[in-house]
Amino acid sequence: MEYMTGKLSSMYKLDDILSAAEGGIVKTHGFVHKIRDMSGFAFVVLRKSDTLVQCVIDGEYDFTEGSCIEVEAQKKTDKRAPNGFELIVKSFKVLSNPAEPMPVTINKKELTTTLDINLQTRPVSLRNIYEREVFRLQEAVAKGFREYMHQNGFVEIHTPKLVSSGAEGGANIFKLDYFGKKAYLAQSPQFYKQTMVGVFERVYEIGPVFRAEKHSTNRHMNEYTGLDFEMGFIDSFYDVMEVEAGMLKYTFDMITREYAETLKILDVTMPDADKIPVVKFADIKKAVAEKYNRKSKDLYDVDPEEEQLVGKYVKEEYGSDFVFVTHYPTKKRPFYALDDPYDPNYTLSFDLLFRGIEITTGGQRIHDYKEQCEKMVKKGLNPEDFESYLMIHKHGMPPHGGLGIGLERLTMKLLDKSNIRLATLFPRDVTRLTP
Amino acid sequence: MEYMTGKLSSMYKLDDILSAAEGGIVKTHGFVHKIRDMSGFAFVVLRKSDTLVQCVIDGEYDFTEGSCIEVEAQKKTDKRAPNGFELIVKSFKVLSNPAEPMPVTINKKELTTTLDINLQTRPVSLRNIYEREVFRLQEAVAKGFREYMHQNGFVEIHTPKLVSSGAEGGANIFKLDYFGKKAYLAQSPQFYKQTMVGVFERVYEIGPVFRAEKHSTNRHMNEYTGLDFEMGFIDSFYDVMEVEAGMLKYTFDMITREYAETLKILDVTMPDADKIPVVKFADIKKAVAEKYNRKSKDLYDVDPEEEQLVGKYVKEEYGSDFVFVTHYPTKKRPFYALDDPYDPNYTLSFDLLFRGIEITTGGQRIHDYKEQCEKMVKKGLNPEDFESYLMIHKHGMPPHGGLGIGLERLTMKLLDKSNIRLATLFPRDVTRLTP
Repeated sequence: MEYMTGKLSSMYKLDDILSAAEGGIVKTHGFVHKIRDMSGFAFVVLRKSDTLVQCVIDGEYDFTEGSCIEVEAQKKTDKRAPNGFELIVKSFKVLSNPAEPMPVTINKKELTTTLDINLQTRPVSLRNIYEREVFRLQEAVAKGFREYMHQNGFVEIHTPKLVSSGAEGGANIFKLDYFGKKAYLAQSPQFYKQTMVGVFERVYEIGPVFRAEKHSTNRHMNEYTGLDFEMGFIDSFYDVMEVEAGMLKYTFDMITREYAETLKILDVTMPDADKIPVVKFADIKKAVAEKYNRKSKDLYDVDPEEEQLVGKYVKEEYGSDFVFVTHYPTKKRPFYALDDPYDPNYTLSFDLLFRGIEITTGGQRIHDYKEQCEKMVKKGLNPEDFESYLMIHKHGMPPHGGLGIGLERLTMKLLDKSNIRLATLFPRDVTRLTP
Repeated sequence: MEYMTGKLSSMYKLDDILSAAEGGIVKTHGFVHKIRDMSGFAFVVLRKSDTLVQCVIDGEYDFTEGSCIEVEAQKKTDKRAPNGFELIVKSFKVLSNPAEPMPVTINKKELTTTLDINLQTRPVSLRNIYEREVFRLQEAVAKGFREYMHQNGFVEIHTPKLVSSGAEGGANIFKLDYFGKKAYLAQSPQFYKQTMVGVFERVYEIGPVFRAEKHSTNRHMNEYTGLDFEMGFIDSFYDVMEVEAGMLKYTFDMITREYAETLKILDVTMPDADKIPVVKFADIKKAVAEKYNRKSKDLYDVDPEEEQLVGKYVKEEYGSDFVFVTHYPTKKRPFYALDDPYDPNYTLSFDLLFRGIEITTGGQRIHDYKEQCEKMVKKGLNPEDFESYLMIHKHGMPPHGGLGIGLERLTMKLLDKSNIRLATLFPRDVTRLTP
């Protein structure tokens, strides 16, 4: 009888080779990233999961760029080579050869194609080291979020994306037939994460979010990854903001520590989130209008150009890349938002702006049954359509609140990209459903 | 100017109270889980995120079961109380009162309702301690998977669920209109995780998976959570199985260590995955047919009853709860499965069975462009329909393989449940789209 016992082969990472002795024999593998053919020998750069490794091959070879090979080689210090060593190849084995050459040049420092070509050839263009590391940074952001959540007693949940009603209202929702019934794709895990506050007090979810918005912009996607949390027994919605501030600080510190090589390739440093200013919606709109002599185009929201000015304002006045804008008008916030008892035209809600763009929407939710039913009616909704959601209010909920962060949006701004598509693995927009 | 600096209030966890001194004053909160009214005082059991806490209240109180309250109390050792202490309440504050009593009794050890009532009242029934801990165990399984992946160099990815073609074929796929084009909900992240092997070598994803299967069974859901990984530069598909064996062992050990209270409430222990037997499809079918004198109903697959017998067989013969069944017939495996070069009627693939039920399907994939195109044609597919997927084969892929695990299915079997709905937070089946 043969058994599996969980033993793994190694030499797949840079560390494995680094820890080998000078002059020692190592066995490793990789994609042939670049070949520089000299007379009688060749420099062959291998692309491994986390680095480039320079090999020197003496004599003939039967592979091309794009091939996958395995080598047995002697490690030799060479300060000019990446990571300070070369592999002098003793023998190699070709694992596969490509059928055709690359449609884009991936072995330069950065891609030099247009955005369109980059996205059309995504399965290949992502093999460029710079493009690749964008998504290692994205992994890091999700990791930081998750670790901070776990350390602070939030429980991870997985809630359904096939739902019977939208949480955010409006027309931007995908519909489909579900065994003869009408179903929708979840615009957020809103109802379910609130529900789970009744179970675990603090919950979080990382999952896809679907928005059927018909307009194409540089900062919206029709499918993106939401980092969502929700917490009960809050004193006010400031508690939610404190958790976000703490999470960002933790995440940026962790990334600086654990993802140094990625940051180097991407040529970025993590921003400072130690002290995030808090301003009221009405106040910051006034301050920005005065300072930059610009009249807002939207009484009830912050328009995109105004958002940029808010970013500029807090950078100039408080030296911060981030700003919490609070107390958004009731008119533009969803039906579950808790009104400010001092002025019900405003809600106990906030956005977090990062370098002039909204990356988070959050706030305190209504927890009282009667109050929630009444606000639904006021918003033109029928409480009977939300029977299972309202079960939580009916049978007892603590004061609670939460937020949602767009993972791609945050990644985009960390890298100062002007288009969110460059921070999305396989973007979905009005014209793009493939790759 | 006000700032957020990431400071969090505490006393939300059992640990916070446990670490307080005997006789000390603590401030905490919770759901009123149970009230036992005595003459002149009352025992009030608070349900907190991770435990029950017994409070003693002297005199009047204006809340009911289902209320949320905050208490200031003195900690007093009492061996009869949960966790060995009571809280002698000095003052309390009612945060909210329910509008109606619970539709099901949630404060007994286990729910005593029917499955239907349990699922219909999910937002409330999940507040039962036993029901709740099922999903803490589920969190733990996902956590173990993720930690093991990360430790072994797998990078986390988030791939689109809106896709232009199905990966698994067949009719069980949800369709929707995507801005005038036909789109589908991903049946698995198959194409994308293979694509990302070309980028990161080793990748994993935890995300929703959609299957439009019209039949209702006790072990299928129309939406579930997939734990998927894919790895490049494998020697054979046995490498994939080794990673799974290692991951299961790691996860079960971690859960036993870190989730002891959950296991106690659920009254389970983690299974032994140290040595998982490996048997060939054809061999085990023969062995089971002989031992139990039963003819298989499916030449090309293992039928559900047969699966149970396979489980029984490996338990009796090898003392194992798990068994890898390998070399499934080409006829029943998808077009990307690599054929066995020694007998192309079989594929280099496997299922992992756990206590007589399949929890994983995996195998080695075709990496050669020509071979993949030919197999598509043989399976009645047109390679032109898979242009962007085939880009990876065309431009160079290493030998690679991977697998998918159903998170709810695994949770169900760990708890020896007979119905997967009891291991699914908000189940989606032919008749259920809500809660």
